[in-house]
Amino acid sequence: SRNIRLAVIPGDGIGAEVVTEGLKVLEAVGTKIESTHYDLGAARYHRTGETLPDSVMEELRGYDAILLGAVGDPSVPPGVLERDLLLRLRFAFDHYVNLRPVKLFPGVSTPLAGAGPDDIDMIVVREGTEGLYAGTGGAMRRGTPHEIATQESLNTAYGVERVVRYAFDKAQGRPRKKLTLVHKTNVLTFAGDLWQRTVDRVAAEYPEVTTDYCHIDAASMFFVSQPERFDVVVTDNLFGDIITDLGAAIAGGIGLAASGNVNPERSAPSMFEPVHGSAPDIAGQGKADPTATILSVAMLLDHLGLAAEAAKVEQAVAADLAERAAGGAGRSTSQIGDDITARVSG
Amino acid sequence: SRNIRLAVIPGDGIGAEVVTEGLKVLEAVGTKIESTHYDLGAARYHRTGETLPDSVMEELRGYDAILLGAVGDPSVPPGVLERDLLLRLRFAFDHYVNLRPVKLFPGVSTPLAGAGPDDIDMIVVREGTEGLYAGTGGAMRRGTPHEIATQESLNTAYGVERVVRYAFDKAQGRPRKKLTLVHKTNVLTFAGDLWQRTVDRVAAEYPEVTTDYCHIDAASMFFVSQPERFDVVVTDNLFGDIITDLGAAIAGGIGLAASGNVNPERSAPSMFEPVHGSAPDIAGQGKADPTATILSVAMLLDHLGLAAEAAKVEQAVAADLAERAAGGAGRSTSQIGDDITARVSG
Ligand SMILES: CC(C)[C@H](C(=O)O)[C@@H](O)C(=O)O
Ligand SMILES: CC(C)[C@H](C(=O)O)[C@@H](O)C(=O)O
Repeated sequence: SRNIRLAVIPGDGIGAEVVTEGLKVLEAVGTKIESTHYDLGAARYHRTGETLPDSVMEELRGYDAILLGAVGDPSVPPGVLERDLLLRLRFAFDHYVNLRPVKLFPGVSTPLAGAGPDDIDMIVVREGTEGLYAGTGGAMRRGTPHEIATQESLNTAYGVERVVRYAFDKAQGRPRKKLTLVHKTNVLTFAGDLWQRTVDRVAAEYPEVTTDYCHIDAASMFFVSQPERFDVVVTDNLFGDIITDLGAAIAGGIGLAASGNVNPERSAPSMFEPVHGSAPDIAGQGKADPTATILSVAMLLDHLGLAAEAAKVEQAVAADLAERAAGGAGRSTSQIGDDITARVSG
Repeated sequence: SRNIRLAVIPGDGIGAEVVTEGLKVLEAVGTKIESTHYDLGAARYHRTGETLPDSVMEELRGYDAILLGAVGDPSVPPGVLERDLLLRLRFAFDHYVNLRPVKLFPGVSTPLAGAGPDDIDMIVVREGTEGLYAGTGGAMRRGTPHEIATQESLNTAYGVERVVRYAFDKAQGRPRKKLTLVHKTNVLTFAGDLWQRTVDRVAAEYPEVTTDYCHIDAASMFFVSQPERFDVVVTDNLFGDIITDLGAAIAGGIGLAASGNVNPERSAPSMFEPVHGSAPDIAGQGKADPTATILSVAMLLDHLGLAAEAAKVEQAVAADLAERAAGGAGRSTSQIGDDITARVSG
């Protein structure tokens, strides 16, 4: 089978531990992997002052995909690694689809009383390159009683339409064929109008897809009270950030939430990463759950056209999770990785 | 006892029904009320094209407080009534504190498995006059493939400091004395920096208050997985909007969530309203739960210095809710109002 050229960015905190398990599983699917590790993150920042040298970014561009653990460390000023490394990659490689499944696997417990796998099974298509993440804004008279600080949300027809189209395609391919736009059109009138008009226009090309709209505040409530309302959700960068953490909370916790920063046209490598952060408090102790990374590896395989391999990994995870429910608690990071690997190989 | 001069805006949908019950309870506390109804909302908009005439706004300025039901109707373009009526009042009357308790009453069921009243008991202090609600932004080349749409978040030292001080005062007066700033400082760096610096600076004046920080995405997760983390939350206008609907969801639903749009200096009347909307689908059927409005009336009394009366209303609601748990379901809007009124009078 074909070789996958993979760039691996373990990053900070628990990043290295979970990535190790992700790679174990990836190797077990029987696809040839050529992987190169990049030491980006807090350590490199302290050693050299660099977060992501241009030369490294150009090198990364040559890979089929990127697997990222987590970035961020209390020793680095807040936001530096997030922005100059993570967000920079998302923007530079045009990861305009930030794909985040919210799916409760059988046997996994949710904090929502009475909800089961049939109720919590959606995909959030979060825009990844626009909105408030553009980073524009500024401050004036900083530190004085007259300071003003602004942030700007930038939204383009080009940027909104492509992610909306992607979301319609996803919805079309799912049994329920339902797409919900989440925004705040009654307050963010300019951006909301662009999003709503775009959804309405593209909807005409997808007569089988039912479309719905929900304000972000109501959506946050419904994620908890009626998660079964949602099938595919399309939303902007910031709302998507918020709602996918909420999604992780209802679908068994941040230890299971996978994500893909996807460039659907493949003009640059897509990047797969667990939704969780670097969790410095438990780093190096074998306590981190590598499942989110392993599910991100499944998304990576799927993106590269290896659907059967992706399904194998997802099934192995599902089986492992079902067994945890039956009492298999207390395993270390590497034990979980080994167990899932064994199922993939077996 | 002293007369309360109250302006009442029933508004749209279920607004009139719930406000009727709120007023019943208010009259039962034994305070003299002089109330004047204002027919603002969809009906007036259709009749006259007006949402909030300047003359009416100036009249409203003369009251001790405003009780609002709900605004918004599908027959009016989305956002018009919300912005030109509700948000306009919040801005014009400088309601910079949007106070939203998130409190699970004993006997009320929460969708969170295993959580009880001890776990869910916080107050969200949402900023009410700045941020993305300023309404600034615009669109260019609208309707073309080259459209761009922007929204701006405006944050001032003046605006942030006053709401942060209010939140510290609230925290100081509660047993746990804990204040959590919720923001997204790693992405919204200019605004986040202003908020974080302000909290740090004011914290020095409140040595007994413990301060904490949480990104909005993590906070959304923790509202579901560890609501007991929070005591007082201070946050910006949009994050507060989202997190208080989520708060309503975990604390028994939108039928119980009260709010106050508060001008602490009393330079203009404060406005009290349920968090829920106008729910046109169930309007006029006696199905709406007036409890959120009645709890908003308790906040109104408290704001006007009638702490004992406020406590009486809250206790009556608590008793009513405990009884519902014991099987008192199926009552109409006015039956619930009557039952709570009876407890207040009795
Ligand atoms: C680390 C942070 C910048 C990032 C984001 O806000 O996108 C994270 O929360 C995520 O969701 O991937
Ligand atoms: C109706 C809408 C403008 C309003 C808001 O966003 O503030 C509502 O959601 C609320 O929370 O009071």
